[in-house]
Amino acid sequence: MDGVISYDNLIKLTESILSAGCGYSPGEAGITARVLAEADARNVPSHGVSRLAFYRMNREKNFTKPGAEPEIVWETPCSLAVDGHDGVGAYISEFCVKRVIGKAEDAGTCFCAVRGSNHYGMAGIWAEMIAENDMIGLAFTNTRAGAIPTYGRRRMLGTNPIAAAIPGDGGRGGMFLLDVATTTVSHGKIEVYDRRRRPMPQGWAVDENGAGTADASEVEKMFRSGGAYGGHLFLGGEGEENGGHKGFGLGLLVELLCSGLSAGMSSAETFTPGHGSGITHFFGALRLDLFGDPGNIKKRVGGILRAIRESEKAAGQDRIYIHGEKEAEAREKAMKDGVFIDGATRDLLESLAGEFGLVPPQWR
Amino acid sequence: MDGVISYDNLIKLTESILSAGCGYSPGEAGITARVLAEADARNVPSHGVSRLAFYRMNREKNFTKPGAEPEIVWETPCSLAVDGHDGVGAYISEFCVKRVIGKAEDAGTCFCAVRGSNHYGMAGIWAEMIAENDMIGLAFTNTRAGAIPTYGRRRMLGTNPIAAAIPGDGGRGGMFLLDVATTTVSHGKIEVYDRRRRPMPQGWAVDENGAGTADASEVEKMFRSGGAYGGHLFLGGEGEENGGHKGFGLGLLVELLCSGLSAGMSSAETFTPGHGSGITHFFGALRLDLFGDPGNIKKRVGGILRAIRESEKAAGQDRIYIHGEKEAEAREKAMKDGVFIDGATRDLLESLAGEFGLVPPQWR
Repeated sequence: MDGVISYDNLIKLTESILSAGCGYSPGEAGITARVLAEADARNVPSHGVSRLAFYRMNREKNFTKPGAEPEIVWETPCSLAVDGHDGVGAYISEFCVKRVIGKAEDAGTCFCAVRGSNHYGMAGIWAEMIAENDMIGLAFTNTRAGAIPTYGRRRMLGTNPIAAAIPGDGGRGGMFLLDVATTTVSHGKIEVYDRRRRPMPQGWAVDENGAGTADASEVEKMFRSGGAYGGHLFLGGEGEENGGHKGFGLGLLVELLCSGLSAGMSSAETFTPGHGSGITHFFGALRLDLFGDPGNIKKRVGGILRAIRESEKAAGQDRIYIHGEKEAEAREKAMKDGVFIDGATRDLLESLAGEFGLVPPQWR
Repeated sequence: MDGVISYDNLIKLTESILSAGCGYSPGEAGITARVLAEADARNVPSHGVSRLAFYRMNREKNFTKPGAEPEIVWETPCSLAVDGHDGVGAYISEFCVKRVIGKAEDAGTCFCAVRGSNHYGMAGIWAEMIAENDMIGLAFTNTRAGAIPTYGRRRMLGTNPIAAAIPGDGGRGGMFLLDVATTTVSHGKIEVYDRRRRPMPQGWAVDENGAGTADASEVEKMFRSGGAYGGHLFLGGEGEENGGHKGFGLGLLVELLCSGLSAGMSSAETFTPGHGSGITHFFGALRLDLFGDPGNIKKRVGGILRAIRESEKAAGQDRIYIHGEKEAEAREKAMKDGVFIDGATRDLLESLAGEFGLVPPQWR
């Protein structure tokens, strides 16, 4: 049975589970709970509190080491490289993003490459946090390898998302907030086709020989088998005809910025038993007043977004969505009406609360 | 009949045509000829000397105003905004990229937003020029509007390419050099299907109602009609199923960085009679030593690229190409054997040389 819970209660519950079940410190649990609950509030449940099962497993397998403090290993007035020492992803990311904003306030711009981190939730939240300071915000991360290079068959790269936030001049969808995996779809979408026993669209995945497949169950089996072959295709699909090499290039760009610059693990090296998960990130901030009066730039950005939003729609469509707009509207609704939690995630929360002797979730 | 010409002769001929036929100064003709000939040498003929017809038309329609000098309209230690005053695109871009490199040498990083420019050739050449200085190089540009937002039908954005260059540790394909339109394909590919009267793959274009079409001739007619509807789809194709909204978001990101930050024209506003073409660019440089020892970073980047290149291939494939590798090999061959010029472009060069009384092209 699905449930609805208030945003504040969802954060408190998630904090308690992370403290009691995963050994997170109050600081680690606080920021992680906020990042996960924000994703549910924005109707991005794939990055929401359903991830608590994954976070717990990472703790048990020692991929995540709560209590580890991030260390700045290289620094200039406009940059830093950080080793997270396998600590909590959101805690490390908050540490980095705060410094990126602070240094950009002084230097105009700042970039940060991070190694030895863990899953940091929805990439867009970090980009947005930067952009709230009249800056352009960038946040990239590599992930567990699940994607196949064009013409390859071994999983060499993650879904490697790109997040970029640019402030506009307010109102609905006032900020441009792009947050997209460089693969065609997220793993969650393939799981849905598997559960429903429906063929997937072409362009989502290849089999162990590197050939396009519509068989979601076969792909799920490949992922669960522990083998190294077959997986996600990049945006643009198989081969080069529809630009699959472009999506691959964007995923590889993310990999080089994250694991290349930080000297951390590549996606293919992450989650090796005996090591931390080894996830790497890259954050960036550019102050708007590097290029002109920030008020004017925000108006210009807003004007471009409005012109696109108001342009003529395709037959049968009544709306063109600017990136971040759907999520902003979902969040506004969730703050009023509560956060929607699907049945499986509701069961997970009940069960974790029970196991750790916590106050049960207060469903509305 | 196709032709082959030496790289140096192609540059000299192109310079002469630009000087005699388009009124370019020696400085303007020199850099433009180099940028166009480089594209042909790299087997990217869509951005090569075949564009001379377009460059000439832009001069005649006063979209390009040779002799106009770029002006720095805003400046900080790590940034500049430039108004190109409708001058020559490659000349303006060289002006900006030199300053971006110089300022990044001092400040660690530099970004530049440019308005009032013109077509600047292959985006990757500018990113590469920056990366040759142990920096990450970025080059984006908007273009004449030809692409349709997800769920729209009016051409609101250009093919808005993303170019990013990251130095590796040498050898073949030593540098990662991504240079991709954010649309599924370039306009040239649709033209080929039109000429051959073959149906295009789905995901390339939509008709005037915003519905997917495989009819290349219909799309070509739409572009030539002077109407505003129907055109390119973004990477990921129609709707959201295969991620078309992601490609749209990347194209929109490029638009905001270029025309948003520079306060220049949006793609939809470019090429308005009575104005310059109004093309806008965005360049960026980040020194590798912002994040660690540059030698170590280049080794790490090279290692990631090698691991991908050497990973197992899909059935029937014998190679995984890193971005920029095909073009680097084509260039090496062209420097030895000469630059290949297709029949139509050969005729164009012959005809322009004849019209302007120049020494005829010296085919091999």
